[in-house]
Amino acid sequence: MNDHGYVVCAFNRTTSKVDRFLENEAKGTNIVGAHSIEELCSKLKRPRRIMVMVKAGQPVDDLIDDLLPHLEEGDIVIDGGNSHYPDTQRRYEDLKGKGILYLGTGVSGGEEGARYGPSIMPGGNKDAWPHVKDIFQAISAKAPDGSPCCEWVGEGGAGHFVKMVHNGIEYGDMQLICEAYQLMRDVYKMSDDQMGSVFDRWNNGVLDSFLIEITRDILKFKDTDGSPLVEKIRDTAGQKGTGKWTAIEALNGGIPVTLIGEAVFARCLSALKSERVRASKMLHGPTEAPKVAVTQQKVDDLEQALYASKIISYAQGFMMMREASKTYNWNLQFGSIALMWRGGCIIRSSFLGKIKDAFDVNPDIESLLFADFFKQATATAQSGWRNAVLDCVATGIPCPAMSTALSFYDGYRCARLPANLLQAQRDYFGAHTYELEDKPGNWVHTNWTGHGGEISSSTYNA
Amino acid sequence: MNDHGYVVCAFNRTTSKVDRFLENEAKGTNIVGAHSIEELCSKLKRPRRIMVMVKAGQPVDDLIDDLLPHLEEGDIVIDGGNSHYPDTQRRYEDLKGKGILYLGTGVSGGEEGARYGPSIMPGGNKDAWPHVKDIFQAISAKAPDGSPCCEWVGEGGAGHFVKMVHNGIEYGDMQLICEAYQLMRDVYKMSDDQMGSVFDRWNNGVLDSFLIEITRDILKFKDTDGSPLVEKIRDTAGQKGTGKWTAIEALNGGIPVTLIGEAVFARCLSALKSERVRASKMLHGPTEAPKVAVTQQKVDDLEQALYASKIISYAQGFMMMREASKTYNWNLQFGSIALMWRGGCIIRSSFLGKIKDAFDVNPDIESLLFADFFKQATATAQSGWRNAVLDCVATGIPCPAMSTALSFYDGYRCARLPANLLQAQRDYFGAHTYELEDKPGNWVHTNWTGHGGEISSSTYNA
Repeated sequence: MNDHGYVVCAFNRTTSKVDRFLENEAKGTNIVGAHSIEELCSKLKRPRRIMVMVKAGQPVDDLIDDLLPHLEEGDIVIDGGNSHYPDTQRRYEDLKGKGILYLGTGVSGGEEGARYGPSIMPGGNKDAWPHVKDIFQAISAKAPDGSPCCEWVGEGGAGHFVKMVHNGIEYGDMQLICEAYQLMRDVYKMSDDQMGSVFDRWNNGVLDSFLIEITRDILKFKDTDGSPLVEKIRDTAGQKGTGKWTAIEALNGGIPVTLIGEAVFARCLSALKSERVRASKMLHGPTEAPKVAVTQQKVDDLEQALYASKIISYAQGFMMMREASKTYNWNLQFGSIALMWRGGCIIRSSFLGKIKDAFDVNPDIESLLFADFFKQATATAQSGWRNAVLDCVATGIPCPAMSTALSFYDGYRCARLPANLLQAQRDYFGAHTYELEDKPGNWVHTNWTGHGGEISSSTYNA
Repeated sequence: MNDHGYVVCAFNRTTSKVDRFLENEAKGTNIVGAHSIEELCSKLKRPRRIMVMVKAGQPVDDLIDDLLPHLEEGDIVIDGGNSHYPDTQRRYEDLKGKGILYLGTGVSGGEEGARYGPSIMPGGNKDAWPHVKDIFQAISAKAPDGSPCCEWVGEGGAGHFVKMVHNGIEYGDMQLICEAYQLMRDVYKMSDDQMGSVFDRWNNGVLDSFLIEITRDILKFKDTDGSPLVEKIRDTAGQKGTGKWTAIEALNGGIPVTLIGEAVFARCLSALKSERVRASKMLHGPTEAPKVAVTQQKVDDLEQALYASKIISYAQGFMMMREASKTYNWNLQFGSIALMWRGGCIIRSSFLGKIKDAFDVNPDIESLLFADFFKQATATAQSGWRNAVLDCVATGIPCPAMSTALSFYDGYRCARLPANLLQAQRDYFGAHTYELEDKPGNWVHTNWTGHGGEISSSTYNA
């Protein structure tokens, strides 16, 4: 903010950090400091604009409580952390009642993004937006066409909801890259340098993105002994964050966001390292695994598998936002969200430009998969996608994200899934009733056994 | 209960139902009726044993509130519905403070099980157990060796937790059967009678179970016009129940219960019928789908795929119970749980006898997959399992449950998953630090770009 000409007042409860910051990074700038919340509030012009960057959860509530006695009607409090959106909704409502304008703002960009221009997803009290718009759009990343990666998202918890979905998608993108890496490493027997070169090439094609780019850098990065550092890193990942929230939200909303779900579970499985090591000695792979040699075709197939799976993951994420927008009356602008993610954030990619384009053509499109571009892209990718999954299945490489994406695609394009059998089963054992294909809305029960009752169940909830 | 010589007093808030019941089903029995809660409580001997069968949620709390003024210390209230286990835990604690012994009891069996002997999973206040044990074990189903499918589960919410996992597994079993059915129907082009015969044969093999048996009956069941009724049923399933709770619980606990997760999401996808119908006209399957003709080998492979996937699903479910048992100090007896599910309930099967055997051999076995029987069974099934998934992937049949099971198996037996790359990515973009394979517990950060900071992140929670 200082870089863009705004005068900033910095505060941290550990006041020595304020001093150290003023004497170092902030030296020679217009940044001023404060050593108490009272001092901070006294130094800000009105309406005060206070951006809070603390750990999600109780610390946010605590800080708001500390701020409240020093605020006046019309002041603006902005939470820039990874808060869970129902918390943001609650705080927004509480503070609205007290005349304070609350913004829950998703910020993504990691270490460099936070410093050089992140993606910013502001939601909350729209009355605050005119007071922060210029600052946020100035400091945000810019898409290649110069548009700021920051636009108003929606009332209440909308900003943090969209940030949550962003993080879920990030989980999915990372898992997909890991699956491609494992197939290349363990079956195609490629070196890290070879794989790095593949990611470099992919980064100049349809997969062009920040995560593909850093994967290239990581695979090429050598430890002091000259060997690839990544191979020395322990294969256990944490998962207690926003990815999990996204999957739970999807379950609660009844939206099949399967790829993010699998990505979260894959991290859970990775965490069971010692159990896996024991399992690896007892459970064996295919005894007659086909010999698979790497060819350019194989690598190209894998690129298509990643690309198509990624399309499915984003289609699922946007389904989830579509439903939430209806549920909460947020009136989310999906093209605008794609643009916000186009630059600055962890999932930034040229691909998001294509999503923006799709929503520009039709802002109400029911599914990303129905947009001409993505319909064509999945059709083109399909054969490579299936080939890569076939290689994983035949050789014993786990590919939960790529294969769930394919199952979603194959299920989504089924006018007739096998759930008719499932409904018959539920009616058979629990008298739950079912609909006939030609009489939807009309629930009937069949006495399948001849000796069950004719009475259907109304309350059993299987 | 009446059938087993216990005198029962029946009450329903709609008192006409009580009268109708006394005049019909209960006529000539020892069952008495009550027309008010006061009357009900006055007619029961002490300690009163009151079994509540109402819809989960608020109705249970309301009924408890209505009962309380008429109860005395030591009385027993039993919730036999599908309550969510944290609610049961809360009620158990509340009532304990009031001197009332609360039992949260899972009951499974569907319409016939409820009448002729269900599986009963009691948990809650153990002081109540001696007062209801004989009744519950008398009315419960019996395993083939005569043991009652009812045993003490654990304190607090343990009974309803185990029932929740049971229902999640039920979701998984049903989804697996649906996937096998779709492959046979849509690719192998088998008639319902042919498929019915396959399920009949499967019911005499390793898959011997209630759900396989009723699937056989359903496929053979003819509508009045002589055609199979199941093919006229609408392919949309509901999912707002215990399956969803199980998946959410797995996510919260960090346990990769992927198969149940996919089964729940598959129901979500089935519910999007009109969207799927539109998608079916725009999105196409493999252009060069291999011609697949059904052979005995194909059907046998599919049987193995179902069997192995089912083993994975149960292994995941027991992982979840293992963790919950630790978290809540429930001291769950896994062999006893397998025995409870052996008969009476929806997932009853001969397979559960094998699980019981495995825990008899080693009650502390870390994973079902480590038991000799299941290690051997998955090894034997593996080739057929992969073949069936390969057929689905190549021909465009969704198989989210079978393929996630396979990915879990292949991931679980990986001493080295690709999560090392994921950890490198997180450290690259967010300075989250990572562990080295040879120095676990020691978290380090690398400046991957040369221009990022050397400072690692402590609070960012991606």
